[in-house]
Amino acid sequence: MSIENQIIEALEWRYAVKKFDPTKKIKQEHWKILEESLLLSPSSYGLQPWKFLVVQNVALRKQLTPASWNQTQVEDCSHYVVLATLKTITEDYIGSFIQSTAETRHMDVASLMGYQKMIIGDLVQGPRSKVIEHWAQKQSYIAMGNIMHSAALLKIDSCPMEGIDPKAYDKILGLENTPYASAAAVALGYRSSEDKYQLAKKVRFPKDQIIKVLM
Amino acid sequence: MSIENQIIEALEWRYAVKKFDPTKKIKQEHWKILEESLLLSPSSYGLQPWKFLVVQNVALRKQLTPASWNQTQVEDCSHYVVLATLKTITEDYIGSFIQSTAETRHMDVASLMGYQKMIIGDLVQGPRSKVIEHWAQKQSYIAMGNIMHSAALLKIDSCPMEGIDPKAYDKILGLENTPYASAAAVALGYRSSEDKYQLAKKVRFPKDQIIKVLM
Repeated sequence: MSIENQIIEALEWRYAVKKFDPTKKIKQEHWKILEESLLLSPSSYGLQPWKFLVVQNVALRKQLTPASWNQTQVEDCSHYVVLATLKTITEDYIGSFIQSTAETRHMDVASLMGYQKMIIGDLVQGPRSKVIEHWAQKQSYIAMGNIMHSAALLKIDSCPMEGIDPKAYDKILGLENTPYASAAAVALGYRSSEDKYQLAKKVRFPKDQIIKVLM
Repeated sequence: MSIENQIIEALEWRYAVKKFDPTKKIKQEHWKILEESLLLSPSSYGLQPWKFLVVQNVALRKQLTPASWNQTQVEDCSHYVVLATLKTITEDYIGSFIQSTAETRHMDVASLMGYQKMIIGDLVQGPRSKVIEHWAQKQSYIAMGNIMHSAALLKIDSCPMEGIDPKAYDKILGLENTPYASAAAVALGYRSSEDKYQLAKKVRFPKDQIIKVLM
């Protein structure tokens, strides 16, 4: 099948799985691709203000369930990924990113000073600093889109999980007293044949209400 | 090539293009897939709190440039997509979504009353209502991830644009006095051979700093 058709087929095939088949696990070869989809996600300035916690511990998943509106996906999916994002962006963090850039690209840190100042001016001193937690969370939603798209292409099901209690998650996952906080999660695995939602038609507003071309 | 390899190749090939080749345009067949990538994007509850403005008007693009830190991508790319999101989520809006669900799935609106109440309880009355503009913007970042991933698979370049002045965008694009506000943009097209950033190694923190598996 052409890549064009594969993309359309994957996007139409995907839906937010309500009931996963707990016996089906993502194979290692595919999980590696999903990990790369997170790691290679775009983010503003390339700052990657995130950590991805893959909760495979059964006891931890059980604890997360009541903090997730008791949704069964948490325990039944193959891989449960919690997106945690920075609560604040510090000059130190930006410095470590600039350092990483210089090392990766064999550049002198001094040559990146202007860029570093610009990022600090925007995120530490500028108006965005007032909503920086939201800014960081937004970046993680790009990664969310990325991993679910890759998953669908691999015929791996997913469910984005926003109905979570971030504070309870932080406690259970040991994020309290760290610079990171839980933002959202993505459950990945395989749909149960009993999940009736796989048969439901996708609900979308008409295209002419959503996309407007300004010619 | 296997889909596995295509995904990895696409994710590695993608970078935030600084200089587009203004002579290269996305063909209609591919643009349709990018449109579908927006329309079929997941969003919380499936609410689609967005409109996508495709700015193809040259004069409008010229006006947007100074409101975009004078970045050349605005005018040079093939398709310039502004992500606009709802400033507030009203009971009416949720009602129209429930209506759309009932029509699409041939259900009785009454049978969706519980679901409708749950969404209202969360987004109109609950704590999320206090940060609803951010909530809506986050959803649009899933779409951003989705369209850039599809683009990369089709060897179409992109650049996510967060460095924009949303208020100026709203004015230029006629969004003032509408329920929508500009959140971010994505430039799509083809990299210029002169864009030196295509040769720069991708900067990423080491995997063990970003992905933590809790066994």
